[in-house]
Amino acid sequence: MKKPLIFQTDFGTADGAVSAMYGVAYSVDPTLLISDLTHEITQYDIWEASYRLIQTVRYWPAGSVFVSVVDPGVGSTRRSIAVKTSEGQYVITPDNGTLTHIKRMCGIAEARIIDETVNRLPNSGESYTFHGRDIYAYTGARLAAGVIDFSQVGPEVPAESVIELSVVEATFDGEQVTGTIDVLDVRFGSLWTNISNELFKKLGVNYGQRVEISIENETRTLYKNILVYARSFADVYVGEPLVYMNSLECMAVAINQGSFAKAYNIGTGNKWKIHMRKAPRIVYE
Amino acid sequence: MKKPLIFQTDFGTADGAVSAMYGVAYSVDPTLLISDLTHEITQYDIWEASYRLIQTVRYWPAGSVFVSVVDPGVGSTRRSIAVKTSEGQYVITPDNGTLTHIKRMCGIAEARIIDETVNRLPNSGESYTFHGRDIYAYTGARLAAGVIDFSQVGPEVPAESVIELSVVEATFDGEQVTGTIDVLDVRFGSLWTNISNELFKKLGVNYGQRVEISIENETRTLYKNILVYARSFADVYVGEPLVYMNSLECMAVAINQGSFAKAYNIGTGNKWKIHMRKAPRIVYE
Amino acid sequence: MKKPLIFQTDFGTADGAVSAMYGVAYSVDPTLLISDLTHEITQYDIWEASYRLIQTVRYWPAGSVFVSVVDPGVGSTRRSIAVKTSEGQYVITPDNGTLTHIKRMCGIAEARIIDETVNRLPNSGESYTFHGRDIYAYTGARLAAGVIDFSQVGPEVPAESVIELSVVEATFDGEQVTGTIDVLDVRFGSLWTNISNELFKKLGVNYGQRVEISIENETRTLYKNILVYARSFADVYVGEPLVYMNSLECMAVAINQGSFAKAYNIGTGNKWKIHMRKAPRIVYE
Repeated sequence: MKKPLIFQTDFGTADGAVSAMYGVAYSVDPTLLISDLTHEITQYDIWEASYRLIQTVRYWPAGSVFVSVVDPGVGSTRRSIAVKTSEGQYVITPDNGTLTHIKRMCGIAEARIIDETVNRLPNSGESYTFHGRDIYAYTGARLAAGVIDFSQVGPEVPAESVIELSVVEATFDGEQVTGTIDVLDVRFGSLWTNISNELFKKLGVNYGQRVEISIENETRTLYKNILVYARSFADVYVGEPLVYMNSLECMAVAINQGSFAKAYNIGTGNKWKIHMRKAPRIVYE
Repeated sequence: MKKPLIFQTDFGTADGAVSAMYGVAYSVDPTLLISDLTHEITQYDIWEASYRLIQTVRYWPAGSVFVSVVDPGVGSTRRSIAVKTSEGQYVITPDNGTLTHIKRMCGIAEARIIDETVNRLPNSGESYTFHGRDIYAYTGARLAAGVIDFSQVGPEVPAESVIELSVVEATFDGEQVTGTIDVLDVRFGSLWTNISNELFKKLGVNYGQRVEISIENETRTLYKNILVYARSFADVYVGEPLVYMNSLECMAVAINQGSFAKAYNIGTGNKWKIHMRKAPRIVYE
Repeated sequence: MKKPLIFQTDFGTADGAVSAMYGVAYSVDPTLLISDLTHEITQYDIWEASYRLIQTVRYWPAGSVFVSVVDPGVGSTRRSIAVKTSEGQYVITPDNGTLTHIKRMCGIAEARIIDETVNRLPNSGESYTFHGRDIYAYTGARLAAGVIDFSQVGPEVPAESVIELSVVEATFDGEQVTGTIDVLDVRFGSLWTNISNELFKKLGVNYGQRVEISIENETRTLYKNILVYARSFADVYVGEPLVYMNSLECMAVAINQGSFAKAYNIGTGNKWKIHMRKAPRIVYE
């Protein structure tokens, strides 16, 4: 049976590149169901591509085939890889760190190098710059359509060999949790951290109680304040900041109907640290 | 038989939120045909969400299932609702005014509250902030796939109970029609009013004749001029303003290949009034 | 058997126009597979629409039906046309130059005028401004679904009668090739020229060798420098400019991970000339 095929790139949708990928896939099998994760990954931003995969892959049925093409090294010796996650979805991508979060948070059950001598769009040999179309979309479509099975993608390699970007783990020191700001919920300006709800629970804070948050980058503290831990935005006033558990079950910080990131000029990456601890009770006497 | 499933949100497409909704829907039935109305609704703008539904729903076959998630009150006590329009399409949405135009212009044949004890993605109980994925996409997919019928969405409620935003009706006073500027045709800068072509016809203006237009907001008049009533843009010069009937059969004002909204700083909403009357004949003696 | 249906417009995706086209198509046949080429064509830019078609059409299977609506003349006497390419895909569009590149580079096997008395959405007679929905999407869907065959679109006309925008051909004068900058790879800032790789080969430049590039518009020279001819971006340093063959097998100029167009304020169109010649060997004595 046909499996869903999902494309992610940093190409944007203003030109014909994504549609050429669709065309190649429909040429393999005109009954495939294809959709888009996003094509608005910041150009060359492998970290963001990795994060968007973990945000979505687990909501797709086993057998679904993701093709992710954020490929600053196209034409270099970087490997082309296909993996099967521990939950049964496939991801096809340049092996450049795009699988970082999948490998750590979901697990890779099996990894294979794409054999480009067989898994390449016929007569595409002249072009060296659009592997998304000529190799990845073509191979993804053949796998989703059942033209090839996973073993025919190419030779197996150890899952451990899949390249990972450096990741800083969130920690709990007995009093506070410390993590990094992984990504922004761009349109709403919320900060999504790498602090899992499970780790956060060690603080012993219940809904409606208060949390002291501080955010710093390498050189300075950009924010330090006491916020309510809310179940959802509706628990606070419009314009009020809050701490909440996001849809990935990690901790997030936002302003209800405002942009926290813009308000305080917050960025993302391993150098953006966030600390959370149970707020001290303030007693006025 | 499967019915089309259509998503509308204010999430944008830069992150994985929409694709997670697709994944949930394909997990319900991997043969569903899913497409997007738009994900670029201005954040929290329920009015715009309502308008985009009336712009499209009637062009879809009976049985089509729309899922619209513009949900500033997620996590509050606002109801989750599903309605069947008088033409047979379904819309699933938070009951926050998103159905205003459908209720007034198309009609609601039947309304039901979503029973979240059965219509919720299994194992999604921890997250309180993404009902678009966990409740609306899941329920919409089950309805479109025929896993449940409409009565199984939840208990029926009176159609009259569906929440409406306040709407100002266009009027005719015997000499001029007065309405509001409902929405912009964003990319082309045209003004779309709530004055129906039927009401406009009472002015007795024929194609090629002239109409006096004035536009005012609460504090001042921003535009007053005499324009030609044209069948389409091709009837006027490039750069010339015109009055025409838009694709919803309401009256619109535009500049051929220019942006009327930008040229005169026109906004939208109930406070933006527009008057139209048959232009007086000017006789030079 | 059903054929893929692909939409291209300059409507953007912020409002409901594209979804109304989908709805009309699904009303013709609810099992059609519909996707988007792009809806971000610059408003009224027929040249760009033409270019995006040639960038993609050949990657789609024979029988695929493209509907392209960039239509500044909607409502005028411009013809509505449907063509079959020499490779068997169909394109339905206003006959305003949108088929320029298809006609020149791919070839038109057969051209027909749309008979709007039969190929028009029933009961859409009142609206004159949205032929994309009422005629093009409707006719494209009927052709893709097999409800009508190509001859039923309307009467045949000579392929030569299809309107072309003026095109300047790239030339080789024995020493240098000269062409125009056709389009930008918008998101990455690369310049895509009309100089085919075949013509470029007459310079006798091999990978790794150097090419002298100069770029001028009507009034001045904006860039003149010696660049490496690279197989792909990975062959040069980050930040280094290069000449390469793009995915359409034409010559392109870029900065690895930078924007050439922004760096030197380069535009597109017939007035933007680019010259390439084998770089003279520079001998320091």
